Amino acid sequence: MKIIRYKNEMDFSYALGATLVFELLQNKPELTRRVFVSSQANDSPVLNEIFSICSARGIEVIKGDKAFNLLSPKENCFVIAEFEKFHATLDSSTSNIVLVNPSDAGNVGTIVRTAVGLGFSDIAVIRPAVDIFNPKAIRASMGAVFHARIEYFDSIAEYKARFSGHNLYAFMLKGAEDFSATEVKQPFAFIFGNEATGLPDEYANFCRTVKIPQTVDIDSFSLPIAAAIAMYSAKHIQSH
Amino acid sequence: MKIIRYKNEMDFSYALGATLVFELLQNKPELTRRVFVSSQANDSPVLNEIFSICSARGIEVIKGDKAFNLLSPKENCFVIAEFEKFHATLDSSTSNIVLVNPSDAGNVGTIVRTAVGLGFSDIAVIRPAVDIFNPKAIRASMGAVFHARIEYFDSIAEYKARFSGHNLYAFMLKGAEDFSATEVKQPFAFIFGNEATGLPDEYANFCRTVKIPQTVDIDSFSLPIAAAIAMYSAKHIQSH
Repeated sequence: MKIIRYKNEMDFSYALGATLVFELLQNKPELTRRVFVSSQANDSPVLNEIFSICSARGIEVIKGDKAFNLLSPKENCFVIAEFEKFHATLDSSTSNIVLVNPSDAGNVGTIVRTAVGLGFSDIAVIRPAVDIFNPKAIRASMGAVFHARIEYFDSIAEYKARFSGHNLYAFMLKGAEDFSATEVKQPFAFIFGNEATGLPDEYANFCRTVKIPQTVDIDSFSLPIAAAIAMYSAKHIQSH
Repeated sequence: MKIIRYKNEMDFSYALGATLVFELLQNKPELTRRVFVSSQANDSPVLNEIFSICSARGIEVIKGDKAFNLLSPKENCFVIAEFEKFHATLDSSTSNIVLVNPSDAGNVGTIVRTAVGLGFSDIAVIRPAVDIFNPKAIRASMGAVFHARIEYFDSIAEYKARFSGHNLYAFMLKGAEDFSATEVKQPFAFIFGNEATGLPDEYANFCRTVKIPQTVDIDSFSLPIAAAIAMYSAKHIQSH
């Protein structure tokens, strides 16, 4: 089977590096098609684990450098796995993170990592949006994408129709309420806009708009930082 | 005067892009040596502001593409400023963020942006460490470096000697206390280790060691995310 450079429209993607391949094999072994091992890979406990899972599962292991030249020319990467993309349906009773038109793969990966770490595994993404299966997003997530439920929607209206019982909080620089003083009601959706443009004003028509307090010395927090602050605060509220 | 590609040992650096140049001119005009404007720069309010500050301050404006080819070949960047590096001394009574051996310029820039946004402008960096004046760090900070006091120390011992009245909190995956239940005493130092290796075990000998609660589904939060969560929590505490 040929090795093909990643494109959005493919029904499979790649996990680059031993850590990600191991996460994939632990969580989605049934979706793993084959594993490439570089001629420069050194013997290591993780690599041995990878070999033993592949052997037990009948996953093909291919040694050689062709996949690496094509898929990871610049990375310090000695193991790659090819896996089938998977699609999830969000749980209708669980609080969600909603990313509206995110454009940066690294940002979305970082947010998924943080969300999974804080117990928010249900993430909605509103199109147009970056592809969560872009290998750069998978890498930034450190494998957390294999633990998350991520569902794409064509519009915020489609999301709202499905989650009509959710309390919607739109994070905006023009937000009417100070988020640190907002009582967050469950189940909720924390909604974040695009990195450059934020959320359109009309979100104020159907959401409570909130703003994370900040000094005047910065324009805004970065998207992954704002999302992390919001999720950690809500987690904190839950644990009381 | 020649244009030289950035190197750590130079006593000047570059701000790439109109946003950063504007932040620089607003906050450190006296350190700005000259401003380069690309032949492709479009007329804009920010650019006009830049021209008027340069004119008022007698800062040389150089039109042409030579600086861009050398300093920013891949960026979508039409204004660059060359400025003298500056060095700060931390205020001895203020709470600090302490970054021990950070290695990624983007991470440090993001942390400075978050810190300035949350009111923690005093940041200590323990060597060996990435250079905060690396243009990539400046860019990730979105200009927040021009609002921060950042001081380098050769060792944590040197930092401790100067800040002997500070309460030290070391963020570690092995941290003894749940950070979300820790009462933070002022003035404090929140101490974070290197991205890959964290803090050495011996920090437990002279710090309270804390851990941000997380699920087992991730190894850790990324360094900028952990720092953001910690700072936001402490800010929250201050405001009560």
